[in-house]
Amino acid sequence: MGKSLPKRSEDYSLWYNELVKRADLAENSAVRGCMVIKPYGYSIWEKMQATLDKMFKDTGHQNAYFPLFIPKSYMSREAAHVEGFAKECAVVTHYRLKNDENGKGIIVDPDAKLEEELIVRPTSETVIWNTYKNWIQSYRDLPLLLNQWANVVRWEMRTRLFLRTTEFLWQEGHTAHETKDEAVDETMKILDIYANFAENYMAIPVLKGIKTESERFAGAVDTYCIEALMQDGKALQSGTTHFLGQNFAKAFDVKFATKEGGLDFVWGTSWGVSTRLMGALIMAHSDDNGLVLPPSLAPIQIVIVPIYKTDEQRQQIAEKAATIKSMLEQKGYSVHFDNRDTHKPGWKFAEYELKGVPIRLAIGPNDLENNTVEIARRDTKVKELIGFEALEEHVDGLIKNIQTAIFDNAMKFRKEKTSTADSYNEFKNILEEKGGFIYAHWDGSAETEAIIKDETKATIRLIPLENSKETGKCIYSGKPSKQRVVFAKAY
Amino acid sequence: MGKSLPKRSEDYSLWYNELVKRADLAENSAVRGCMVIKPYGYSIWEKMQATLDKMFKDTGHQNAYFPLFIPKSYMSREAAHVEGFAKECAVVTHYRLKNDENGKGIIVDPDAKLEEELIVRPTSETVIWNTYKNWIQSYRDLPLLLNQWANVVRWEMRTRLFLRTTEFLWQEGHTAHETKDEAVDETMKILDIYANFAENYMAIPVLKGIKTESERFAGAVDTYCIEALMQDGKALQSGTTHFLGQNFAKAFDVKFATKEGGLDFVWGTSWGVSTRLMGALIMAHSDDNGLVLPPSLAPIQIVIVPIYKTDEQRQQIAEKAATIKSMLEQKGYSVHFDNRDTHKPGWKFAEYELKGVPIRLAIGPNDLENNTVEIARRDTKVKELIGFEALEEHVDGLIKNIQTAIFDNAMKFRKEKTSTADSYNEFKNILEEKGGFIYAHWDGSAETEAIIKDETKATIRLIPLENSKETGKCIYSGKPSKQRVVFAKAY
Repeated sequence: MGKSLPKRSEDYSLWYNELVKRADLAENSAVRGCMVIKPYGYSIWEKMQATLDKMFKDTGHQNAYFPLFIPKSYMSREAAHVEGFAKECAVVTHYRLKNDENGKGIIVDPDAKLEEELIVRPTSETVIWNTYKNWIQSYRDLPLLLNQWANVVRWEMRTRLFLRTTEFLWQEGHTAHETKDEAVDETMKILDIYANFAENYMAIPVLKGIKTESERFAGAVDTYCIEALMQDGKALQSGTTHFLGQNFAKAFDVKFATKEGGLDFVWGTSWGVSTRLMGALIMAHSDDNGLVLPPSLAPIQIVIVPIYKTDEQRQQIAEKAATIKSMLEQKGYSVHFDNRDTHKPGWKFAEYELKGVPIRLAIGPNDLENNTVEIARRDTKVKELIGFEALEEHVDGLIKNIQTAIFDNAMKFRKEKTSTADSYNEFKNILEEKGGFIYAHWDGSAETEAIIKDETKATIRLIPLENSKETGKCIYSGKPSKQRVVFAKAY
Repeated sequence: MGKSLPKRSEDYSLWYNELVKRADLAENSAVRGCMVIKPYGYSIWEKMQATLDKMFKDTGHQNAYFPLFIPKSYMSREAAHVEGFAKECAVVTHYRLKNDENGKGIIVDPDAKLEEELIVRPTSETVIWNTYKNWIQSYRDLPLLLNQWANVVRWEMRTRLFLRTTEFLWQEGHTAHETKDEAVDETMKILDIYANFAENYMAIPVLKGIKTESERFAGAVDTYCIEALMQDGKALQSGTTHFLGQNFAKAFDVKFATKEGGLDFVWGTSWGVSTRLMGALIMAHSDDNGLVLPPSLAPIQIVIVPIYKTDEQRQQIAEKAATIKSMLEQKGYSVHFDNRDTHKPGWKFAEYELKGVPIRLAIGPNDLENNTVEIARRDTKVKELIGFEALEEHVDGLIKNIQTAIFDNAMKFRKEKTSTADSYNEFKNILEEKGGFIYAHWDGSAETEAIIKDETKATIRLIPLENSKETGKCIYSGKPSKQRVVFAKAY
């Protein structure tokens, strides 16, 4: 433990960067824009992966693996797709290094130039639809419901740990269907999975909605998303699902024999969440003392810290701690007993606060005498003295309680930071004074959207799915609007 | 199900390629040398991953993630390392595409050339040791026991599905230690984990040993390996662990304050197994009818096939099958009930044989009447009629029995294909007539090793760890030899 963290109120951005590093989540690597995910950060990602993977499998999806490299020509097959991704592609042009004849060390061998350059996948629609062409002949081959866990690369000029990195880890689902309705249903089903995961595991309330054309995935007919609110009042897009229509089927000529004996292009979807979720998790809940992790995703749910003066006390406490640890582990909790004698209890308290461990148990000589345990929760920092007999039941309740409390707290914050604006001035004032989500009327044009973004840096995060369909007038142009949309400044 | 597989005895290589494709394990992609791992193949890999991951974690290792890209200059820091890998590197030189001004479509933007080229990792020692430099200051930071699951790229000219592909999936462990002994112990501990996994999960007996200098990992002081024997009498290197000495610590200046108050370079190891294990699994056990999977790694352990003529029979059998499925799933088995009416039982029998499902249950109208089930094992193709009451216990026994039988069968084969040779002529005769592992004396020189390889295509697979240390004379040069080493033709 070094010095304390910067305060959120003073420099939110610095607080985030420092927290990510000091809590051992990730750090920048020597390769610009690429991060190293450290063991503690990676163990949170593993929990996210395991939870999502089960949700995908429970809904009939299977995992597969497609190549890292995409031939350059594939990228151009779908016109909107290449437009969206060409500007940020890492390109492999050679396949060999050699010793420079002029003694300049190791150089790229000019004789090993590829005939066609390869793109490091920024997303895999092209290579996957090119494969699906061979896998799909008939309606009997449909639906095809695949997912892959993979790394992808998008060359970013401004990067931030987890939020925007050149290489990131993600899952990308790619499904193929007989009908438009089935594909749209899939898009919505996965959106629900993402929202369920965000709310019930990450403890972050999310809005569900549809993107405007300008924010749509390059190659999609419609993009749906979940949007979360961070503590600085900025929105973070936390997952997207894309209804691809027949765009990629047409680009890669994927047709199927229909039940009725005809031949039709296949309907597609794709969807993904990434290590960006780590950024959302950190920014939504943590405080000036460090991470606050919901129990569902905490690698260590309960830490036991011994407080002793003599070796005899240390020994007795260790025995007690072992009993508690084994009891709680049998119930499925992940428990860590930090019995190191190289660090003082106060240091350990601060360390596990920084790491966001939901429950801390402390046991001292008095506790041995009185058969008690001090139990502290990370989120509210409330401490209690509990009798040993009541501990197990108390922990059960507390784990549930903390999970709910963290969500409720985030929900309360979001409500406070959600406004409606009926004029452009009001809109700008809210943005400046409190940020957050702003429900406002919009005329539906990309021009108005672009001007508002240009003038205020706020973007339309989504057109809400659950909506009163209240009509009105656009805050900017005064033209008619069919419903309010949600604006915010965003990551 | 199309036509039957080629026979192993007629064309082993064709048999392998066809089996991999027809059993839905993998196929070649449009990118030369890169494969698509299909859902069924990937589900086997997932089981391998889960098993190994638990073994690593149970021995104190943690997962992390390091960047895909390595700055070109890093590759040259360790002299032997760059020598070994420079010839097969995919090189990223640009970070953007653009529309050609002369209308030639999408081209690489010459203005987006990287100052320093990036190598797509062929292995991650360099980027990881460059990171460890910042993580390790004192003996208190050691040991550092990390692993990552990742994709790597080695540009291969001749590729084969799973066995040798340009991109492959693997795990790579990278550990750092205070002392030489600790690092060597780690190397041996992981070798034991690999051997345990190969023998007790993959059901493949392996030899453990040390590589000769010519076969050593580029940058290692010593490379240890496990070697398995395939049904065509060729060896397959199935996992390697490397004692790196202080080589990478010196190349990346990773020093630590010792307990004694000095400053010393850190001792390192690295170790990995890859999707190549899929190739070993397929080739070690499968037969002319398809895959033979050990129950420990089979995605479907038990399949239930209904045999009916009327809808009423179908309905009754479905109810019985549901009871059996739920009973066996409660015991932790993965069970699939194939109730499709689009395929005949005979087609399904052949399909699950091809896919290597260890146990097949068939239920027909007679079975309903007599309260029986037909149970068939994939490995020996033996069928039995079992009373419903005895089924659960019978399956328990059979699952264990099949796992053991597959291993025993592979062990019997290896024993038959293991020879000793005391002269070069005898050596060449054995190689030609039966292949397999040959224990022979070698004078310890790289020259002799190279000549033998050149003349016979056999290489020294390993210097065995468990060895009688019988001295003798080199089969080629007649010079003195300290012990027999193991030769074989290899994949």
